[in-house]
Amino acid sequence: MKLLVINGVNLALTGRREKTIYGARTLGEINADLAVFCAEQGHEVEFFQSDLEGALCEKLGEAEGKYDGIVLNAGAFTHYSYALRDAIAAISVPVVEVHMSNVQAREEFRRRSVLTEVCRGEILGFGENSYRLALESFWL
Amino acid sequence: MKLLVINGVNLALTGRREKTIYGARTLGEINADLAVFCAEQGHEVEFFQSDLEGALCEKLGEAEGKYDGIVLNAGAFTHYSYALRDAIAAISVPVVEVHMSNVQAREEFRRRSVLTEVCRGEILGFGENSYRLALESFWL
Amino acid sequence: MKLLVINGVNLALTGRREKTIYGARTLGEINADLAVFCAEQGHEVEFFQSDLEGALCEKLGEAEGKYDGIVLNAGAFTHYSYALRDAIAAISVPVVEVHMSNVQAREEFRRRSVLTEVCRGEILGFGENSYRLALESFWL
Amino acid sequence: MKLLVINGVNLALTGRREKTIYGARTLGEINADLAVFCAEQGHEVEFFQSDLEGALCEKLGEAEGKYDGIVLNAGAFTHYSYALRDAIAAISVPVVEVHMSNVQAREEFRRRSVLTEVCRGEILGFGENSYRLALESFWL
Amino acid sequence: MKLLVINGVNLALTGRREKTIYGARTLGEINADLAVFCAEQGHEVEFFQSDLEGALCEKLGEAEGKYDGIVLNAGAFTHYSYALRDAIAAISVPVVEVHMSNVQAREEFRRRSVLTEVCRGEILGFGENSYRLALESFWL
Amino acid sequence: MKLLVINGVNLALTGRREKTIYGARTLGEINADLAVFCAEQGHEVEFFQSDLEGALCEKLGEAEGKYDGIVLNAGAFTHYSYALRDAIAAISVPVVEVHMSNVQAREEFRRRSVLTEVCRGEILGFGENSYRLALESFWL
Amino acid sequence: MKLLVINGVNLALTGRREKTIYGARTLGEINADLAVFCAEQGHEVEFFQSDLEGALCEKLGEAEGKYDGIVLNAGAFTHYSYALRDAIAAISVPVVEVHMSNVQAREEFRRRSVLTEVCRGEILGFGENSYRLALESFWL
Amino acid sequence: MKLLVINGVNLALTGRREKTIYGARTLGEINADLAVFCAEQGHEVEFFQSDLEGALCEKLGEAEGKYDGIVLNAGAFTHYSYALRDAIAAISVPVVEVHMSNVQAREEFRRRSVLTEVCRGEILGFGENSYRLALESFWL
Amino acid sequence: MKLLVINGVNLALTGRREKTIYGARTLGEINADLAVFCAEQGHEVEFFQSDLEGALCEKLGEAEGKYDGIVLNAGAFTHYSYALRDAIAAISVPVVEVHMSNVQAREEFRRRSVLTEVCRGEILGFGENSYRLALESFWL
Amino acid sequence: MKLLVINGVNLALTGRREKTIYGARTLGEINADLAVFCAEQGHEVEFFQSDLEGALCEKLGEAEGKYDGIVLNAGAFTHYSYALRDAIAAISVPVVEVHMSNVQAREEFRRRSVLTEVCRGEILGFGENSYRLALESFWL
Amino acid sequence: MKLLVINGVNLALTGRREKTIYGARTLGEINADLAVFCAEQGHEVEFFQSDLEGALCEKLGEAEGKYDGIVLNAGAFTHYSYALRDAIAAISVPVVEVHMSNVQAREEFRRRSVLTEVCRGEILGFGENSYRLALESFWL
Amino acid sequence: MKLLVINGVNLALTGRREKTIYGARTLGEINADLAVFCAEQGHEVEFFQSDLEGALCEKLGEAEGKYDGIVLNAGAFTHYSYALRDAIAAISVPVVEVHMSNVQAREEFRRRSVLTEVCRGEILGFGENSYRLALESFWL
Repeated sequence: MKLLVINGVNLALTGRREKTIYGARTLGEINADLAVFCAEQGHEVEFFQSDLEGALCEKLGEAEGKYDGIVLNAGAFTHYSYALRDAIAAISVPVVEVHMSNVQAREEFRRRSVLTEVCRGEILGFGENSYRLALESFWL
Repeated sequence: MKLLVINGVNLALTGRREKTIYGARTLGEINADLAVFCAEQGHEVEFFQSDLEGALCEKLGEAEGKYDGIVLNAGAFTHYSYALRDAIAAISVPVVEVHMSNVQAREEFRRRSVLTEVCRGEILGFGENSYRLALESFWL
Repeated sequence: MKLLVINGVNLALTGRREKTIYGARTLGEINADLAVFCAEQGHEVEFFQSDLEGALCEKLGEAEGKYDGIVLNAGAFTHYSYALRDAIAAISVPVVEVHMSNVQAREEFRRRSVLTEVCRGEILGFGENSYRLALESFWL
Repeated sequence: MKLLVINGVNLALTGRREKTIYGARTLGEINADLAVFCAEQGHEVEFFQSDLEGALCEKLGEAEGKYDGIVLNAGAFTHYSYALRDAIAAISVPVVEVHMSNVQAREEFRRRSVLTEVCRGEILGFGENSYRLALESFWL
Repeated sequence: MKLLVINGVNLALTGRREKTIYGARTLGEINADLAVFCAEQGHEVEFFQSDLEGALCEKLGEAEGKYDGIVLNAGAFTHYSYALRDAIAAISVPVVEVHMSNVQAREEFRRRSVLTEVCRGEILGFGENSYRLALESFWL
Repeated sequence: MKLLVINGVNLALTGRREKTIYGARTLGEINADLAVFCAEQGHEVEFFQSDLEGALCEKLGEAEGKYDGIVLNAGAFTHYSYALRDAIAAISVPVVEVHMSNVQAREEFRRRSVLTEVCRGEILGFGENSYRLALESFWL
Repeated sequence: MKLLVINGVNLALTGRREKTIYGARTLGEINADLAVFCAEQGHEVEFFQSDLEGALCEKLGEAEGKYDGIVLNAGAFTHYSYALRDAIAAISVPVVEVHMSNVQAREEFRRRSVLTEVCRGEILGFGENSYRLALESFWL
Repeated sequence: MKLLVINGVNLALTGRREKTIYGARTLGEINADLAVFCAEQGHEVEFFQSDLEGALCEKLGEAEGKYDGIVLNAGAFTHYSYALRDAIAAISVPVVEVHMSNVQAREEFRRRSVLTEVCRGEILGFGENSYRLALESFWL
Repeated sequence: MKLLVINGVNLALTGRREKTIYGARTLGEINADLAVFCAEQGHEVEFFQSDLEGALCEKLGEAEGKYDGIVLNAGAFTHYSYALRDAIAAISVPVVEVHMSNVQAREEFRRRSVLTEVCRGEILGFGENSYRLALESFWL
Repeated sequence: MKLLVINGVNLALTGRREKTIYGARTLGEINADLAVFCAEQGHEVEFFQSDLEGALCEKLGEAEGKYDGIVLNAGAFTHYSYALRDAIAAISVPVVEVHMSNVQAREEFRRRSVLTEVCRGEILGFGENSYRLALESFWL
Repeated sequence: MKLLVINGVNLALTGRREKTIYGARTLGEINADLAVFCAEQGHEVEFFQSDLEGALCEKLGEAEGKYDGIVLNAGAFTHYSYALRDAIAAISVPVVEVHMSNVQAREEFRRRSVLTEVCRGEILGFGENSYRLALESFWL
Repeated sequence: MKLLVINGVNLALTGRREKTIYGARTLGEINADLAVFCAEQGHEVEFFQSDLEGALCEKLGEAEGKYDGIVLNAGAFTHYSYALRDAIAAISVPVVEVHMSNVQAREEFRRRSVLTEVCRGEILGFGENSYRLALESFWL
């Protein structure tokens, strides 16, 4: 399988930003481990990160036919980006929404995701393992 | 008259994306036809598309004095981009909001446009013809 | 094509009522021009106006098989007449909702139309031209 | 017993309108059967239909002392006609509200009836039999 | 002064309908007294009652230039008839809204009037005297 | 036909509890009469009552293939038990929701039923006769 | 009759404050005229003004048995002072709520009065005449 | 590790109930597979199912010190059982909430979980694999 | 006097569960003390605890004529169990609602009690003493 | 212990005001009894009443270090006085909120207290005994 | 310039009240420093504090023509005192709203100010410096 | 001190856009003056403007350790950009939110800022001086 992990706005700050919530490891370190995790299972994985909502939409729009599955942590865009929602709905590649923290146990605005309805599923609250479980969901 | 047609986020996917909603023709094909339509009526038209909210705002901001009218399909930004709304309000060029589908007959979130209040008018539900009618509204 | 233009409550006052919003021409004058506009394009058009919600429903109910399209300006009924909504849904003739003013830029209650969801499309904000564009949408 | 069956807006279209929802039999056919049903049980029944909210109110207002019970399908008026509500409350004849379809399983706006509070009871979802059960409720 | 008293839906039932709320005197008796009251002050008054929302709108629409003031008890239409609101706004004759009962002390739905905003003033809670005070407001 | 009448929480108190609302006859007496009513029409009926939400769900879950129809008075569970709603939706046996009192004319919380949407129909306000009419709806 | 006119918070500024809304005459001038108006009709009137919510409550609490009626313009307290509401409800002297301006045609927060429900009636929109009509309501 | 899988109301119907949503395999079959899955990874797993909200609370209350983790599919209780929420909060054993279907893409009421805030995380949309991923989250 | 103390869902965990909120003493210890407290004042008290909403309803339903007063801590059922509300309303024995913690100072959902309206009174925030004060309220 | 009982707006009317709700005894009589009740238990109590929100805040502000506990019946201020709330929060003396009537069983606006969140506890519905139980809560 | 600093309810407690929020310095100390700050810039400043809403309104009402600017910290009145709002709107002296704490980062009720709309501007979150910046805004 | 002034979407249009609201001076001119203002006080200031939400987030993300304080006018992003909010929360540099206009006195949507909660403070309504006061807040 060929998979894509997309990280959205502010996630490049992971490891430097509120560490009690997001952990102390950088996105690069996390991605490196996920690459190993996929390779061990015989799968290929690519990574993409952008703080630009439009760039994330374009990446999703171009994914048709290129990937077997997408893992998406949209960051704060999760809560209001109908543009991302439309981009997910526009392609037939299944998308799994992930969050490292338990977004239901934080601020009120984080409780609503405008994306989940058009995703295959959602995994939240397991730190880095949220990505791992999401990737695994494609080949389980 | 010199007119501008602006297409927003995910509209570059038109023709590849949910075809039962947005039709099977690409944005390029649609625009080519609109150019002919305008030329036949003796009007000039330019086209702009971007998935970046900020780029759309900039294009609108630079429109002052350059165009006699703007046709805007903001895609999903229609429903939450107060930035686009401010950009429309910042210029004196009249803007007509268009939608290919009947956005009032789809998901709940599509029923609210934050843009219409500062546009001259709105046309929705006529597929490609929504653009055609909007352009015509300027010279009728 | 055989088309029908229906005007609802208070629209008989057009030309006498708030002129800065609805213009200074009477409904009779507007209709006369629309008739010419249709005739020039080789189409036939009829007109109906009533202040009675039930009479408008009946007119719609009788339209099945008689017209190729209906242009409807329901006036204030737009905002609460589920009866009109049901009458539109009851027939297979396509209905296009029109408003002369930009109803999204006026009082809060005018922002909600209970009709659009069962119409083919909606055109608003172009004064008399809203009718013209709506009629044209049927043969474009 | 002397009973009255009142049908409101758009119900004259029954049998021609969305048949999967309202059935293929006309209001005339339905009423004829209801007349037989009542006669068999030794009761008298009259029928009234109007698309005019005010005409329905007047019919209710005149019912005092003339009927032992009223079966009312107000159609779309059910959801917003406080005028009908007041007319029902103004008389001492018991009114039973009926709906052929299960209005709770359709659009959101159909879930609220402004009439039920002042009716004796409500019966919904049984097609033509909704009328039959409502009539029977008076003599059971 | 030439004044007009308009009574809306169900008000023809006054005197027969919930007497603890609306009193035991008929609309005819009330109007007769109001005519005397006006005549004594040297003013002329006319009366109009209809259960049809559209007929009330038409009466208002025709009032321009004919009356110096209008007293309006719209009955239940008070709470949802944006059509009546538009008809009031369409004319320059001042309209005073009246209610016999204290509508703020009854059901929740009666607390909202969609008319007051476009009326000159509102008088409620004084039974028949609500009309008397409203008429007097024009010449006081 | 083989039918099942299910009564939910607190309904075992019928006849002892607020008698002006629920009547003075016990559930046993009511059921006995309903059994006679069905037998007279040549139908078989069983009865089940429980104060346990889960027990009601189980009874519904086991009903598949055993009954031709179910009459359900869920008591207060009507207003919040999505568990019961799911149990009704899980089976193909048609369920008719009943209430003895007019629940729309009592406290605000009683106006919302979370069950009706997945039931065939609803009958309310006729005291014991609500059950009778609901049973009859299956063979009418 | 012995009547009391109570003016609440900021009303001492009348005549100096937004004159297009409240007029150019001072509260003293208005009260003087009202005293004449009452005297001419053979009635006695007293006046009280305070910016202190509690002082207004006390004045109302002491009114029992001293006055035949109270005219109350509570100013901005109208919209949130449940204390005043309780004070009105605590006495048997009838209270008529007045407003000089049409509070329904101004800011949203002015549309809600927490007092009307416990008053006899309400008069609004007639400038100084609102007081006059309210006083008259007691002896009409 | 010693783990517990709890299934709530109506989940005993899995395999017989709406199969397009919940699949055609029974809860017994699913659990059997999960037991094998855990055993292969060297972990022990127990299963509990009840339609009784209180029984689920008790099972959770007794879990303290007995299990290293709990996987909970509360069924419809997810959406309103503050009792279950309190039971989860009362123990220190981490609980992972699972749903087989994508509850965010179904009825409105399913979008709100009152449990997630006190769970470690949530996994939804992967059918039987939701359980598998949730179990794995404990030892990953 | 003969009194009954009912504890609802999860309260059997008292003393083991969040001790900073509910204290470190078990329900058994608390009840033992309450029994002494009552005995000292010459009153008899019984105790009942259940995690089953239906069992609590049944206990209440059977209380008629057996007790002079009931103290009820319904736990989380407080916030949504209309079934319990109906059970309280069904009997004439006065019920006093208690909470050990200040439920108004915790999560938003705990601020609403659906029970208080049909109870005699409510006491909250005094730990074990909430029960003591509630019992005393019956003989004070 | 030295305790303080504060009564807010309109409570000086107790005994004269709606007696079916607040009883026929005056505040003076109630306080006299409470003084005896405290003295018998060996505690000292002072009383304060004001209709002025600000005076109540000042009394609370000055209470620091002077009292061991405060019993507060804020009257209608309970429902909107964030000033009182802040005054309570500003001091470390524990405050117990009391109401003589069951405020949850009266008008909607009385259901919300803006004070409870910063009080130690709340006691409502026991008439004069609400004060007695609140006082006792300090020494129990 | 002649300026006025008004402090509202509970602000006399500053320095004694929640010190982590409002600081440890008293209002007297703060005001003394502000007086020096103004004097150094060649401006005159006066101070007023009251816990009485009505007294604050009166102070504002008397400010016309006496001051060039007013700095207002209304304390909790900020969130509901439409009386203060009206008093600010009644004068032409510009008012700047200040808060020492970041009221948007505290309880929900503190997020709404009913005053800002009629003030010139708002400054919040800078402790004592909020006053200093607000004063400076008048001469900057 | 080293400070950063960030201007968001559409603010590059300042001086050309609605001048009655935002003034006639360009952002360049304003910034030049602010640079002088800071230099005079011995502080260093940098400027950044972007119409791209993501670019603003990146600028904030990179600010850690580089600046002593940030002044942020996010333009329309203020009202919905949870991405910006997260970016502010991700860094320890204090951010002061500014607005040139009084956003509380304009359209409804401008009243809500999703940023203030994570900022140190907010200053609004002073035109260019809003920036000046915000900068000064860092060294005052």
